[in-house]
Amino acid sequence: MIATMPALGALYLVPNTLDFATPGEPPDLRDVLPLGVIRHAARLRHWVAENAKTTRAFLKRVDAVVALGQPLQALSIIELPRPRKGVAHPTSKNADGLDVLHALLAPALAGHDIGLISEAGLPAIADPGAALVQAAHALVIEVIALPGPSSLLLALAASGLNGQSFAFVGYLPVEAQQRIARLRELEALSRRLGQTQLMIETPYRNAALLDAMLAHLNPATRLSVSSGLTLAGGFTHTASVAAWRANPRTLAADVPAVFALLAG
Amino acid sequence: MIATMPALGALYLVPNTLDFATPGEPPDLRDVLPLGVIRHAARLRHWVAENAKTTRAFLKRVDAVVALGQPLQALSIIELPRPRKGVAHPTSKNADGLDVLHALLAPALAGHDIGLISEAGLPAIADPGAALVQAAHALVIEVIALPGPSSLLLALAASGLNGQSFAFVGYLPVEAQQRIARLRELEALSRRLGQTQLMIETPYRNAALLDAMLAHLNPATRLSVSSGLTLAGGFTHTASVAAWRANPRTLAADVPAVFALLAG
Repeated sequence: MIATMPALGALYLVPNTLDFATPGEPPDLRDVLPLGVIRHAARLRHWVAENAKTTRAFLKRVDAVVALGQPLQALSIIELPRPRKGVAHPTSKNADGLDVLHALLAPALAGHDIGLISEAGLPAIADPGAALVQAAHALVIEVIALPGPSSLLLALAASGLNGQSFAFVGYLPVEAQQRIARLRELEALSRRLGQTQLMIETPYRNAALLDAMLAHLNPATRLSVSSGLTLAGGFTHTASVAAWRANPRTLAADVPAVFALLAG
Repeated sequence: MIATMPALGALYLVPNTLDFATPGEPPDLRDVLPLGVIRHAARLRHWVAENAKTTRAFLKRVDAVVALGQPLQALSIIELPRPRKGVAHPTSKNADGLDVLHALLAPALAGHDIGLISEAGLPAIADPGAALVQAAHALVIEVIALPGPSSLLLALAASGLNGQSFAFVGYLPVEAQQRIARLRELEALSRRLGQTQLMIETPYRNAALLDAMLAHLNPATRLSVSSGLTLAGGFTHTASVAAWRANPRTLAADVPAVFALLAG
Protein backbone atom coordinates (compact mmCIF):
# COMPACT_ATOMS: atom_id res chain seq x y z
CA MET A 1 0.00 0.00 0.00
CA ILE A 2 1.32 3.40 -0.96
CA ALA A 3 0.54 6.34 1.29
CA THR A 4 -0.07 9.51 -0.73
CA MET A 5 1.09 12.85 0.59
CA PRO A 6 -1.79 15.30 1.02
CA ALA A 7 -1.44 18.41 -1.14
CA LEU A 8 -0.04 21.27 0.94
CA GLY A 9 -1.97 24.46 1.51
CA ALA A 10 -0.41 27.77 0.50
CA LEU A 11 0.60 30.75 2.60
CA TYR A 12 -1.18 33.84 1.25
CA LEU A 13 0.22 37.23 2.19
CA VAL A 14 -2.91 39.37 2.46
CA PRO A 15 -2.51 43.16 2.21
CA ASN A 16 -4.31 45.29 4.75
CA THR A 17 -5.52 48.88 4.28
CA LEU A 18 -3.38 51.85 5.39
CA ASP A 19 -5.82 53.37 7.91
CA PHE A 20 -4.63 51.54 11.03
CA ALA A 21 -5.10 53.74 14.15
CA THR A 22 -5.93 56.83 12.07
CA PRO A 23 -8.79 59.23 12.85
CA GLY A 24 -11.76 59.67 10.52
CA GLU A 25 -13.75 57.30 8.36
CA PRO A 26 -11.74 54.40 6.91
CA PRO A 27 -11.78 54.23 3.11
CA ASP A 28 -14.06 51.80 1.28
CA LEU A 29 -12.21 48.48 1.08
CA ARG A 30 -12.84 48.39 -2.68
CA ASP A 31 -10.93 51.65 -3.11
CA VAL A 32 -7.69 50.13 -1.88
CA LEU A 33 -7.89 46.34 -2.36
CA PRO A 34 -8.65 44.38 -5.55
CA LEU A 35 -11.99 42.57 -5.46
CA GLY A 36 -10.12 39.31 -6.15
CA VAL A 37 -8.07 39.84 -3.00
CA ILE A 38 -11.20 40.58 -0.94
CA ARG A 39 -12.73 37.34 -2.29
CA HIS A 40 -9.59 35.40 -1.36
CA ALA A 41 -9.62 36.85 2.15
CA ALA A 42 -13.30 35.94 2.55
CA ARG A 43 -12.68 32.24 2.00
CA LEU A 44 -9.59 31.75 4.22
CA ARG A 45 -10.27 29.90 7.49
CA HIS A 46 -6.78 29.97 8.97
CA TRP A 47 -5.07 33.24 9.78
CA VAL A 48 -1.76 34.25 11.27
CA ALA A 49 -1.83 37.90 12.26
CA GLU A 50 0.27 40.68 13.69
CA ASN A 51 -2.80 41.54 15.78
CA ALA A 52 -5.94 39.39 16.14
CA LYS A 53 -8.25 42.30 17.02
CA THR A 54 -7.38 44.38 13.95
CA THR A 55 -7.65 41.23 11.82
CA ARG A 56 -11.22 40.68 13.03
CA ALA A 57 -11.99 44.32 12.20
CA PHE A 58 -10.51 43.79 8.73
CA LEU A 59 -12.57 40.64 8.21
CA LYS A 60 -15.75 42.48 9.18
CA ARG A 61 -14.98 44.97 6.40
CA VAL A 62 -14.34 42.04 4.03
CA ASP A 63 -17.66 40.47 5.03
CA ALA A 64 -19.50 43.68 4.11
CA VAL A 65 -18.24 43.29 0.50
CA VAL A 66 -18.01 39.49 0.10
CA ALA A 67 -19.68 37.25 2.68
CA LEU A 68 -17.13 35.27 4.71
CA GLY A 69 -17.08 31.53 3.95
CA GLN A 70 -17.38 30.84 7.69
CA PRO A 71 -18.70 32.95 10.57
CA LEU A 72 -15.99 35.18 12.04
CA GLN A 73 -16.16 33.26 15.33
CA ALA A 74 -15.35 30.00 13.52
CA LEU A 75 -12.09 31.30 12.02
CA SER A 76 -8.72 30.50 13.51
CA ILE A 77 -6.73 33.72 14.07
CA ILE A 78 -3.35 33.21 15.77
CA GLU A 79 -0.95 36.04 16.53
CA LEU A 80 2.65 35.99 15.40
CA PRO A 81 5.14 35.67 18.24
CA ARG A 82 6.33 39.14 19.23
CA PRO A 83 9.98 39.79 18.43
CA ARG A 84 12.17 39.94 21.53
CA LYS A 85 13.50 43.37 22.46
CA GLY A 86 16.57 44.23 20.46
CA VAL A 87 15.99 41.49 17.87
CA ALA A 88 14.93 43.41 14.79
CA HIS A 89 14.69 40.45 12.44
CA PRO A 90 14.08 37.09 14.10
CA THR A 91 15.32 34.21 11.98
CA SER A 92 14.89 30.48 11.98
CA LYS A 93 18.32 30.21 13.60
CA ASN A 94 16.43 30.55 16.88
CA ALA A 95 15.34 26.94 17.44
CA ASP A 96 12.51 27.88 19.82
CA GLY A 97 11.16 30.44 17.36
CA LEU A 98 11.27 27.86 14.59
CA ASP A 99 9.07 25.46 16.56
CA VAL A 100 6.51 28.21 17.07
CA LEU A 101 6.57 29.08 13.36
CA HIS A 102 6.17 25.44 12.34
CA ALA A 103 3.14 25.17 14.62
CA LEU A 104 1.64 28.25 12.92
CA LEU A 105 2.13 26.57 9.55
CA ALA A 106 0.54 23.25 10.62
CA PRO A 107 -2.74 23.97 8.77
CA ALA A 108 -0.82 24.29 5.48
CA LEU A 109 0.91 20.95 6.10
CA ALA A 110 -2.59 19.49 6.55
CA GLY A 111 -3.72 20.93 3.21
CA HIS A 112 -5.37 24.20 4.29
CA ASP A 113 -4.47 27.65 2.96
CA ILE A 114 -3.30 30.20 5.53
CA GLY A 115 -3.58 33.99 5.38
CA LEU A 116 -0.82 36.15 6.86
CA ILE A 117 -1.86 39.73 7.63
CA SER A 118 -0.34 42.71 9.41
CA GLU A 119 -1.95 45.83 10.83
CA ALA A 120 -1.38 47.88 7.66
CA GLY A 121 -0.10 47.33 4.14
CA LEU A 122 1.78 44.26 2.95
CA PRO A 123 2.86 41.75 5.59
CA ALA A 124 6.60 41.06 6.08
CA ILE A 125 7.60 44.52 4.81
CA ALA A 126 8.39 47.04 7.54
CA ASP A 127 6.27 44.66 9.61
CA PRO A 128 6.61 41.24 11.25
CA GLY A 129 6.08 38.08 9.22
CA ALA A 130 9.31 37.50 7.28
CA ALA A 131 10.39 34.72 9.64
CA LEU A 132 7.09 32.88 9.03
CA VAL A 133 7.51 33.27 5.26
CA GLN A 134 11.06 31.95 5.56
CA ALA A 135 9.83 28.94 7.54
CA ALA A 136 7.17 28.30 4.86
CA HIS A 137 9.84 28.22 2.13
CA ALA A 138 11.89 25.78 4.23
CA LEU A 139 8.83 23.47 4.40
CA VAL A 140 8.19 23.87 0.63
CA ILE A 141 4.86 25.57 1.34
CA GLU A 142 3.91 27.79 -1.58
CA VAL A 143 3.99 31.50 -0.70
CA ILE A 144 1.71 33.83 -2.65
CA ALA A 145 1.73 37.60 -2.07
CA LEU A 146 -1.59 39.21 -3.03
CA PRO A 147 -1.47 42.74 -4.47
CA GLY A 148 -2.46 45.69 -2.33
CA PRO A 149 -1.34 49.08 -1.11
CA SER A 150 2.21 49.64 0.12
CA SER A 151 2.73 53.04 1.68
CA LEU A 152 6.47 52.80 0.90
CA LEU A 153 6.02 52.37 -2.84
CA LEU A 154 3.10 54.79 -3.12
CA ALA A 155 5.24 57.39 -1.34
CA LEU A 156 8.21 56.68 -3.60
CA ALA A 157 6.13 56.90 -6.80
CA ALA A 158 4.48 60.13 -5.67
CA SER A 159 7.78 61.68 -4.53
CA GLY A 160 9.26 62.15 -7.99
CA LEU A 161 12.61 61.09 -6.48
CA ASN A 162 14.75 58.37 -8.04
CA GLY A 163 12.62 55.23 -8.49
CA GLN A 164 15.38 53.33 -10.35
CA SER A 165 17.50 53.02 -7.19
CA PHE A 166 16.08 53.30 -3.70
CA ALA A 167 16.43 51.86 -0.22
CA PHE A 168 14.12 51.52 2.75
CA VAL A 169 16.01 51.83 6.02
CA GLY A 170 13.20 51.53 8.58
CA TYR A 171 13.25 53.73 11.68
CA LEU A 172 15.94 56.23 12.66
CA PRO A 173 17.43 56.29 16.17
CA VAL A 174 15.32 58.26 18.66
CA GLU A 175 18.29 59.77 20.54
CA ALA A 176 19.02 63.23 19.09
CA GLN A 177 22.75 62.95 18.33
CA GLN A 178 22.43 59.43 16.95
CA ARG A 179 19.52 60.56 14.81
CA ILE A 180 21.50 63.47 13.36
CA ALA A 181 24.46 61.18 12.66
CA ARG A 182 22.19 58.66 10.93
CA LEU A 183 20.52 61.37 8.82
CA ARG A 184 23.92 62.61 7.64
CA GLU A 185 25.02 59.05 6.92
CA LEU A 186 21.90 58.43 4.81
CA GLU A 187 22.36 61.72 2.97
CA ALA A 188 25.99 60.82 2.18
CA LEU A 189 24.91 57.35 1.00
CA SER A 190 22.18 58.90 -1.16
CA ARG A 191 24.72 61.26 -2.73
CA ARG A 192 27.28 58.52 -3.37
CA LEU A 193 24.80 56.01 -4.88
CA GLY A 194 22.24 58.43 -6.36
CA GLN A 195 19.81 56.38 -4.25
CA THR A 196 16.53 57.57 -2.71
CA GLN A 197 16.46 56.74 1.01
CA LEU A 198 13.04 55.96 2.52
CA MET A 199 12.25 55.84 6.22
CA ILE A 200 9.29 55.79 8.61
CA GLU A 201 8.60 57.02 12.11
CA THR A 202 6.09 56.38 14.86
CA PRO A 203 3.37 58.95 13.98
CA TYR A 204 3.62 60.99 17.21
CA ARG A 205 7.30 61.60 16.38
CA ASN A 206 6.69 62.62 12.73
CA ALA A 207 6.97 66.36 13.44
CA ALA A 208 10.20 65.88 15.41
CA LEU A 209 11.76 63.85 12.58
CA LEU A 210 10.80 66.52 10.05
CA ASP A 211 12.32 69.21 12.30
CA ALA A 212 15.57 67.23 12.54
CA MET A 213 15.67 66.78 8.77
CA LEU A 214 15.13 70.49 8.08
CA ALA A 215 17.77 71.42 10.66
CA HIS A 216 20.49 68.98 9.58
CA LEU A 217 20.12 68.01 5.91
CA ASN A 218 21.84 69.91 3.11
CA PRO A 219 19.65 72.75 1.67
CA ALA A 220 19.92 71.20 -1.83
CA THR A 221 18.77 67.74 -0.72
CA ARG A 222 15.28 66.97 -1.93
CA LEU A 223 12.90 65.82 0.78
CA SER A 224 9.51 64.18 0.21
CA VAL A 225 6.93 63.57 2.92
CA SER A 226 3.84 61.46 2.27
CA SER A 227 1.21 61.59 4.99
CA GLY A 228 -1.98 59.53 5.19
CA LEU A 229 -1.68 57.92 1.76
CA THR A 230 -5.01 56.50 0.45
CA LEU A 231 -6.80 58.44 3.25
CA ALA A 232 -8.90 61.62 3.07
CA GLY A 233 -6.53 64.56 3.53
CA GLY A 234 -3.50 62.50 2.52
CA PHE A 235 -0.74 64.30 0.61
CA THR A 236 2.75 64.03 -0.82
CA HIS A 237 4.94 67.12 -0.68
CA THR A 238 8.37 67.18 -2.32
CA ALA A 239 10.77 70.12 -2.31
CA SER A 240 14.37 70.99 -1.55
CA VAL A 241 15.25 71.27 2.13
CA ALA A 242 15.77 75.00 1.50
CA ALA A 243 12.20 75.33 0.15
CA TRP A 244 10.81 73.26 3.06
CA ARG A 245 12.53 75.65 5.48
CA ALA A 246 10.93 78.65 3.76
CA ASN A 247 7.47 77.03 3.86
CA PRO A 248 7.34 74.61 6.77
CA ARG A 249 4.37 72.26 7.11
CA THR A 250 3.02 70.60 10.21
CA LEU A 251 2.51 66.85 10.25
CA ALA A 252 -0.38 65.17 12.05
CA ALA A 253 0.69 63.20 15.13
CA ASP A 254 -1.84 60.40 14.49
CA VAL A 255 -1.37 59.72 10.77
CA PRO A 256 1.41 57.50 9.40
CA ALA A 257 3.98 59.22 7.18
CA VAL A 258 6.78 58.08 4.89
CA PHE A 259 9.90 60.22 4.50
CA ALA A 260 12.17 60.08 1.44
CA LEU A 261 15.34 61.99 0.68
CA LEU A 262 17.60 62.27 -2.34
CA ALA A 263 20.82 64.22 -1.91
CA GLY A 264 21.02 67.18 -4.30
CA MET B 1 -11.97 93.09 -11.34
CA ILE B 2 -10.17 90.21 -9.73
CA ALA B 3 -9.21 87.26 -11.90
CA THR B 4 -9.58 84.01 -9.99
CA MET B 5 -7.09 81.20 -10.53
CA PRO B 6 -8.77 78.06 -11.84
CA ALA B 7 -8.36 75.08 -9.51
CA LEU B 8 -5.52 72.88 -10.72
CA GLY B 9 -6.09 69.31 -11.80
CA ALA B 10 -4.15 66.54 -10.07
CA LEU B 11 -1.61 64.08 -11.45
CA TYR B 12 -2.83 60.55 -10.70
CA LEU B 13 -0.25 57.77 -10.82
CA VAL B 14 -2.30 54.84 -12.14
CA PRO B 15 -0.96 51.31 -11.53
CA ASN B 16 -0.97 48.90 -14.46
CA THR B 17 -1.19 45.10 -14.26
CA LEU B 18 1.96 42.94 -14.29
CA ASP B 19 1.22 40.94 -17.46
CA PHE B 20 2.93 43.21 -20.00
CA ALA B 21 4.34 41.15 -22.92
CA THR B 22 3.69 37.85 -21.13
CA PRO B 23 2.16 34.77 -22.81
CA GLY B 24 -1.22 33.38 -21.76
CA GLU B 25 -4.48 34.94 -20.66
CA PRO B 26 -4.06 38.20 -18.74
CA PRO B 27 -5.63 38.13 -15.25
CA ASP B 28 -9.01 39.71 -14.59
CA LEU B 29 -8.40 43.40 -13.90
CA ARG B 30 -10.41 43.09 -10.66
CA ASP B 31 -7.98 40.48 -9.34
CA VAL B 32 -5.09 42.93 -9.33
CA LEU B 33 -6.53 46.47 -9.18
CA PRO B 34 -8.97 47.96 -6.65
CA LEU B 35 -12.38 48.73 -8.09
CA GLY B 36 -11.94 52.34 -6.95
CA VAL B 37 -8.77 52.60 -9.05
CA ILE B 38 -10.52 51.12 -12.10
CA ARG B 39 -13.31 53.71 -11.62
CA HIS B 40 -10.74 56.50 -11.39
CA ALA B 41 -9.04 55.33 -14.56
CA ALA B 42 -12.37 55.16 -16.39
CA ARG B 43 -13.09 58.85 -15.86
CA LEU B 44 -9.67 60.32 -16.76
CA ARG B 45 -9.55 62.07 -20.13
CA HIS B 46 -5.89 63.09 -20.18
CA TRP B 47 -3.15 60.48 -20.08
CA VAL B 48 0.63 60.56 -20.12
CA ALA B 49 1.98 57.12 -20.87
CA GLU B 50 5.17 55.14 -21.22
CA ASN B 51 3.50 53.56 -24.28
CA ALA B 52 0.27 54.74 -25.93
CA LYS B 53 -0.60 51.35 -27.44
CA THR B 54 -0.41 49.43 -24.17
CA THR B 55 -2.35 52.25 -22.48
CA ARG B 56 -5.19 51.81 -24.99
CA ALA B 57 -5.15 48.05 -24.30
CA PHE B 58 -5.32 48.80 -20.56
CA LEU B 59 -8.23 51.21 -21.06
CA LYS B 60 -10.14 48.57 -23.05
CA ARG B 61 -9.80 46.27 -20.04
CA VAL B 62 -10.98 49.12 -17.79
CA ASP B 63 -13.97 49.73 -20.08
CA ALA B 64 -15.02 46.07 -19.74
CA VAL B 65 -15.39 46.60 -15.96
CA VAL B 66 -16.43 50.28 -15.71
CA ALA B 67 -17.56 52.11 -18.87
CA LEU B 68 -15.12 54.85 -19.87
CA GLY B 69 -16.42 58.38 -19.37
CA GLN B 70 -15.44 59.19 -22.98
CA PRO B 71 -14.92 56.95 -26.00
CA LEU B 72 -11.34 55.66 -26.21
CA GLN B 73 -10.78 57.66 -29.42
CA ALA B 74 -11.68 60.88 -27.63
CA LEU B 75 -9.03 60.48 -24.94
CA SER B 76 -5.72 62.30 -25.07
CA ILE B 77 -2.83 59.83 -24.65
CA ILE B 78 0.64 61.37 -24.96
CA GLU B 79 3.84 59.39 -24.58
CA LEU B 80 6.58 60.39 -22.15
CA PRO B 81 9.75 61.58 -23.85
CA ARG B 82 12.16 58.64 -24.09
CA PRO B 83 15.26 59.01 -21.93
CA ARG B 84 18.39 59.62 -23.95
CA LYS B 85 20.86 56.74 -24.08
CA GLY B 86 23.03 56.66 -21.01
CA VAL B 87 20.78 58.99 -19.00
CA ALA B 88 19.22 56.70 -16.44
CA HIS B 89 17.25 59.34 -14.58
CA PRO B 90 16.43 62.49 -16.55
CA THR B 91 15.91 65.45 -14.29
CA SER B 92 14.49 68.90 -14.68
CA LYS B 93 18.05 70.20 -14.89
CA ASN B 94 17.71 69.54 -18.61
CA ALA B 95 15.97 72.73 -19.75
CA ASP B 96 14.65 71.16 -22.98
CA GLY B 97 13.21 68.20 -21.04
CA LEU B 98 11.52 70.57 -18.61
CA ASP B 99 9.67 72.35 -21.42
CA VAL B 100 8.38 69.03 -22.69
CA LEU B 101 7.26 68.00 -19.21
CA HIS B 102 5.48 71.33 -18.63
CA ALA B 103 3.60 70.83 -21.91
CA LEU B 104 2.51 67.37 -20.73
CA LEU B 105 1.18 68.93 -17.53
CA ALA B 106 -0.75 71.70 -19.31
CA PRO B 107 -4.14 69.97 -18.81
CA ALA B 108 -3.61 70.03 -15.02
CA LEU B 109 -2.80 73.74 -15.14
CA ALA B 110 -6.13 74.17 -16.97
CA GLY B 111 -7.98 72.28 -14.24
CA HIS B 112 -8.10 68.73 -15.65
CA ASP B 113 -6.83 65.64 -13.90
CA ILE B 114 -4.09 63.66 -15.67
CA GLY B 115 -3.30 59.95 -15.43
CA LEU B 116 0.31 58.77 -15.60
CA ILE B 117 0.71 55.09 -16.50
CA SER B 118 3.56 52.77 -17.38
CA GLU B 119 3.58 49.39 -19.12
CA ALA B 120 3.47 47.43 -15.87
CA GLY B 121 3.08 48.12 -12.16
CA LEU B 122 3.43 51.53 -10.52
CA PRO B 123 4.65 54.40 -12.70
CA ALA B 124 7.92 56.14 -11.77
CA ILE B 125 9.31 53.04 -10.02
CA ALA B 126 11.77 51.01 -12.10
CA ASP B 127 10.03 52.82 -14.94
CA PRO B 128 9.97 56.28 -16.52
CA GLY B 129 7.82 59.02 -15.03
CA ALA B 130 9.75 60.39 -12.05
CA ALA B 131 10.81 63.49 -13.98
CA LEU B 132 7.15 64.26 -14.78
CA VAL B 133 6.19 63.81 -11.12
CA GLN B 134 9.06 66.10 -10.13
CA ALA B 135 7.85 68.75 -12.60
CA ALA B 136 4.33 68.44 -11.17
CA HIS B 137 5.61 69.13 -7.64
CA ALA B 138 7.51 72.16 -8.95
CA LEU B 139 4.22 73.50 -10.40
CA VAL B 140 2.34 72.73 -7.14
CA ILE B 141 0.18 70.20 -8.97
CA GLU B 142 -1.13 67.64 -6.51
CA VAL B 143 0.33 64.15 -7.05
CA ILE B 144 -1.76 61.16 -5.99
CA ALA B 145 -0.44 57.60 -6.29
CA LEU B 146 -3.26 55.06 -6.59
CA PRO B 147 -2.70 51.63 -5.00
CA GLY B 148 -1.93 48.64 -7.19
CA PRO B 149 0.49 45.79 -7.70
CA SER B 150 4.25 46.35 -7.44
CA SER B 151 6.27 43.32 -8.50
CA LEU B 152 9.18 44.57 -6.36
CA LEU B 153 7.25 44.66 -3.11
CA LEU B 154 5.27 41.49 -3.80
CA ALA B 155 8.58 39.72 -4.50
CA LEU B 156 10.11 41.12 -1.32
CA ALA B 157 7.13 40.11 0.86
CA ALA B 158 7.03 36.61 -0.63
CA SER B 159 10.81 36.16 -0.35
CA GLY B 160 10.94 35.92 3.44
CA LEU B 161 14.15 37.97 3.27
CA ASN B 162 14.65 41.11 5.37
CA GLY B 163 11.72 43.46 4.78
CA GLN B 164 12.89 45.97 7.44
CA SER B 165 15.87 47.06 5.32
CA PHE B 166 16.02 46.59 1.57
CA ALA B 167 17.26 48.27 -1.59
CA PHE B 168 16.25 48.10 -5.24
CA VAL B 169 19.25 48.55 -7.52
CA GLY B 170 17.67 48.16 -10.97
CA TYR B 171 19.52 46.25 -13.66
CA LEU B 172 22.96 44.69 -13.40
CA PRO B 173 25.62 45.27 -16.07
CA VAL B 174 25.29 42.92 -19.06
CA GLU B 175 29.02 42.42 -19.58
CA ALA B 176 30.11 39.24 -17.77
CA GLN B 177 33.03 40.52 -15.69
CA GLN B 178 31.22 43.73 -14.72
CA ARG B 179 28.17 41.69 -13.77
CA ILE B 180 30.18 39.39 -11.52
CA ALA B 181 31.87 42.38 -9.88
CA ARG B 182 28.50 44.05 -9.28
CA LEU B 183 26.99 40.86 -7.82
CA ARG B 184 29.88 40.58 -5.38
CA GLU B 185 29.58 44.26 -4.50
CA LEU B 186 25.84 43.84 -3.77
CA GLU B 187 26.50 40.71 -1.70
CA ALA B 188 29.11 42.57 0.36
CA LEU B 189 26.72 45.51 0.83
CA SER B 190 23.95 43.12 1.87
CA ARG B 191 26.26 41.50 4.43
CA ARG B 192 27.49 44.81 5.84
CA LEU B 193 24.03 46.43 6.13
CA GLY B 194 21.90 43.29 6.64
CA GLN B 195 19.98 44.67 3.67
CA THR B 196 18.02 42.68 1.08
CA GLN B 197 19.14 43.69 -2.44
CA LEU B 198 16.48 43.54 -5.17
CA MET B 199 17.17 43.64 -8.90
CA ILE B 200 15.46 42.98 -12.22
CA GLU B 201 16.54 41.81 -15.65
CA THR B 202 15.19 41.87 -19.19
CA PRO B 203 13.20 38.59 -19.26
CA TYR B 204 15.22 36.88 -22.00
CA ARG B 205 18.33 37.30 -19.82
CA ASN B 206 16.69 35.96 -16.62
CA ALA B 207 18.27 32.51 -16.96
CA ALA B 208 21.73 33.99 -17.58
CA LEU B 209 21.44 36.20 -14.49
CA LEU B 210 20.40 33.23 -12.36
CA ASP B 211 23.37 31.23 -13.70
CA ALA B 212 25.75 34.05 -12.82
CA MET B 213 24.26 34.29 -9.31
CA LEU B 214 24.59 30.56 -8.67
CA ALA B 215 28.14 30.58 -9.99
CA HIS B 216 29.45 33.61 -8.11
CA LEU B 217 27.45 34.23 -4.92
CA ASN B 218 28.44 32.74 -1.57
CA PRO B 219 26.76 29.33 -0.90
CA ALA B 220 25.24 30.67 2.34
CA THR B 221 23.66 33.72 0.68
CA ARG B 222 19.90 33.40 0.43
CA LEU B 223 18.51 33.97 -3.05
CA SER B 224 14.84 34.53 -3.91
CA VAL B 225 13.44 34.54 -7.43
CA SER B 226 9.87 35.63 -8.13
CA SER B 227 8.63 34.92 -11.64
CA GLY B 228 5.31 35.96 -13.14
CA LEU B 229 3.82 37.41 -9.96
CA THR B 230 -0.01 37.74 -10.09
CA LEU B 231 0.02 35.54 -13.25
CA ALA B 232 -0.98 31.90 -13.69
CA GLY B 233 2.12 29.79 -13.04
CA GLY B 234 3.82 32.56 -11.08
CA PHE B 235 6.01 31.52 -8.17
CA THR B 236 8.47 32.69 -5.54
CA HIS B 237 11.33 30.36 -4.66
CA THR B 238 13.75 31.19 -1.83
CA ALA B 239 16.70 29.07 -0.75
CA SER B 240 20.40 29.31 -0.04
CA VAL B 241 22.66 29.50 -3.08
CA ALA B 242 23.94 26.05 -2.09
CA ALA B 243 20.38 24.64 -2.19
CA TRP B 244 19.67 26.38 -5.51
CA ARG B 245 22.79 24.75 -6.97
CA ALA B 246 21.59 21.32 -5.81
CA ASN B 247 18.13 21.87 -7.32
CA PRO B 248 18.41 24.34 -10.17
CA ARG B 249 15.26 25.75 -11.76
CA THR B 250 14.77 27.13 -15.23
CA LEU B 251 13.27 30.57 -15.68
CA ALA B 252 10.93 31.46 -18.53
CA ALA B 253 12.47 33.83 -21.08
CA ASP B 254 9.21 35.75 -21.62
CA VAL B 255 8.01 36.32 -18.05
CA PRO B 256 9.31 39.14 -15.84
CA ALA B 257 11.21 38.11 -12.73
CA VAL B 258 12.49 39.86 -9.62
CA PHE B 259 15.70 38.67 -7.93
CA ALA B 260 16.47 39.28 -4.26
CA LEU B 261 19.53 38.31 -2.26
CA LEU B 262 20.45 38.52 1.41
CA ALA B 263 24.00 37.60 2.34
CA GLY B 264 24.11 34.68 4.80
